[in-house]
Amino acid sequence: MVSGRIRIGIAGYGNLGRGVESAVAASADMTLVGVFTRRDPAALVPQRPDTAVFGWDALAGYEDEIDVLILCGGSKSDLPQQGPELAARFNTVDSFDTHARIPEYFAAVDAPARNAGRTALISTGWDPGLFSINRVYGEAILPVGETYTFWGRGVSQGHSDAVRRVPGVAAAVQYTLPSEVAMAKVRGGSRPELTTREKHTRECFVVLDTGADADVVREAIVTMPDYFDQYDTVVHFVDADTLARDHGGMPHGGFVIRSGSTGTGNVQTVEYSLALGSNPEFTASVLVAYARAVYRLNADGRIGAHTVYDVAPGLLSPKSPEQLRAELL
Amino acid sequence: MVSGRIRIGIAGYGNLGRGVESAVAASADMTLVGVFTRRDPAALVPQRPDTAVFGWDALAGYEDEIDVLILCGGSKSDLPQQGPELAARFNTVDSFDTHARIPEYFAAVDAPARNAGRTALISTGWDPGLFSINRVYGEAILPVGETYTFWGRGVSQGHSDAVRRVPGVAAAVQYTLPSEVAMAKVRGGSRPELTTREKHTRECFVVLDTGADADVVREAIVTMPDYFDQYDTVVHFVDADTLARDHGGMPHGGFVIRSGSTGTGNVQTVEYSLALGSNPEFTASVLVAYARAVYRLNADGRIGAHTVYDVAPGLLSPKSPEQLRAELL
Repeated sequence: MVSGRIRIGIAGYGNLGRGVESAVAASADMTLVGVFTRRDPAALVPQRPDTAVFGWDALAGYEDEIDVLILCGGSKSDLPQQGPELAARFNTVDSFDTHARIPEYFAAVDAPARNAGRTALISTGWDPGLFSINRVYGEAILPVGETYTFWGRGVSQGHSDAVRRVPGVAAAVQYTLPSEVAMAKVRGGSRPELTTREKHTRECFVVLDTGADADVVREAIVTMPDYFDQYDTVVHFVDADTLARDHGGMPHGGFVIRSGSTGTGNVQTVEYSLALGSNPEFTASVLVAYARAVYRLNADGRIGAHTVYDVAPGLLSPKSPEQLRAELL
Repeated sequence: MVSGRIRIGIAGYGNLGRGVESAVAASADMTLVGVFTRRDPAALVPQRPDTAVFGWDALAGYEDEIDVLILCGGSKSDLPQQGPELAARFNTVDSFDTHARIPEYFAAVDAPARNAGRTALISTGWDPGLFSINRVYGEAILPVGETYTFWGRGVSQGHSDAVRRVPGVAAAVQYTLPSEVAMAKVRGGSRPELTTREKHTRECFVVLDTGADADVVREAIVTMPDYFDQYDTVVHFVDADTLARDHGGMPHGGFVIRSGSTGTGNVQTVEYSLALGSNPEFTASVLVAYARAVYRLNADGRIGAHTVYDVAPGLLSPKSPEQLRAELL
């Protein structure tokens, strides 16, 4: 190990992989072995000139050179295959975020990791991830209460894609917005029951194809089943330059609020929120902090699949337990 | 163990002990063995009629009857003596909150706990405790950034006591208020350097002794060294009935904000906040959740002193790891 630093590999180089590249560079106790891509490595230009780029098959020679491999593929088709396969050969961290399939994915990663003496941390990032942690702390500390999760204001890729598929739409970005009214009710301690429509609204910025009818496009968007029909949706028509200039970022965020009561009815409110200038860069920063924890868990003999629920907060920090107690407790 | 429930003891019965009594009652997986008091147990009337009350010396017979003893004494004189002594005989949880002396207290508790095969969780609550956890998560995930802690709006017992000692003051309550202006700057991502005066203000509600001069009292308060001279302080004079009616509660709260940046300068903000109707009841609820974790840590052979940094979030929940992954991740 070069100068005692944790050696990180990046498997997959989209927005998340680029975020991991930046976050590793910002971590003095880590070094980046390189990016492994299924594309032609010669054609890939990394953000940082000193980043090494390898073909996917080259991973086969790096089992002893990488302390933690960060899987930056998608949850739909990449991770279900790559997660179990790579957990048999590397310590891994991933952001598998299909909530309903997490138990199945956990089992699929756990067995190969355990057999190989490797440690895999699945489903981290901010939701699942930091929001999940806050849901558990809130419920454990205030057992009498309700937990509310709100998302936004942020760009939803899935909903933006859905709008782009509407006939007459040349380009589009969709924002999910939490309802200020609903959040105020929750913060007030009344523990309201909230419908889907009451919790979030949706806002679309759309560039029309030449000759497309704005009213027809708007109607097609706001009535789209599952994606929009259960929400109040506002559609703005803009030109291509405005979309590129004002809506090219990937902001996101959200809120986890636990509203509970203790004793003879004292209202207690715990709120966790994120306001993210870049969703993929923040998610990547969470993955990198958990890579540090995975390295330590594996060194401690804690093999198999884990989630954020299994990781003590101190393991994420480059500081020693003594430092943490003296400086941050 | 009665029906598999975790058997809790309460050492000390002030506001915090009463909060623990309520929080244990709200936890289906716990049962309260009783309250142990240095006062005359016959003279102590517990909140809940079924709570058993014992003298302090009776603790000597309960080493095998109590799974976790929650220490509800104060940090100034009680815990420095009780913490090490009781950690040699029980698994313990405490809220030792003299930040500067935590390393020393940790060492004093660690040795006896370790020798006895017991587990002690020190310095939990909300600050130190939940706020500490959020300081570590924030710094580990966003290494380029600054962490800001604001307290309030809430009653400070230390400052209220200081006001009560001013000649001419019959009764008083002091609130610490976070500055909205300072918080807005922090949330804006500019990472300001903030002075003590800029971060918090202080507000006092004072009942005067008969014949006392309001201006003299106000001046004595706002110029009091350390307690008030570095802050902007507002003093309100009220009658005794108003003080009792409007200022008899123990609200508190605060904010931990990590303002960081990633990549090429995207601003990322993580905010954790508490709005507490009852400070002691909330602190007690945190202690009780950590008692669950201590019980599990000890069963797992993890002995000696620990802090919140050493405790994985899932250990606080009565739910199994499988349930947590399926329901809350």
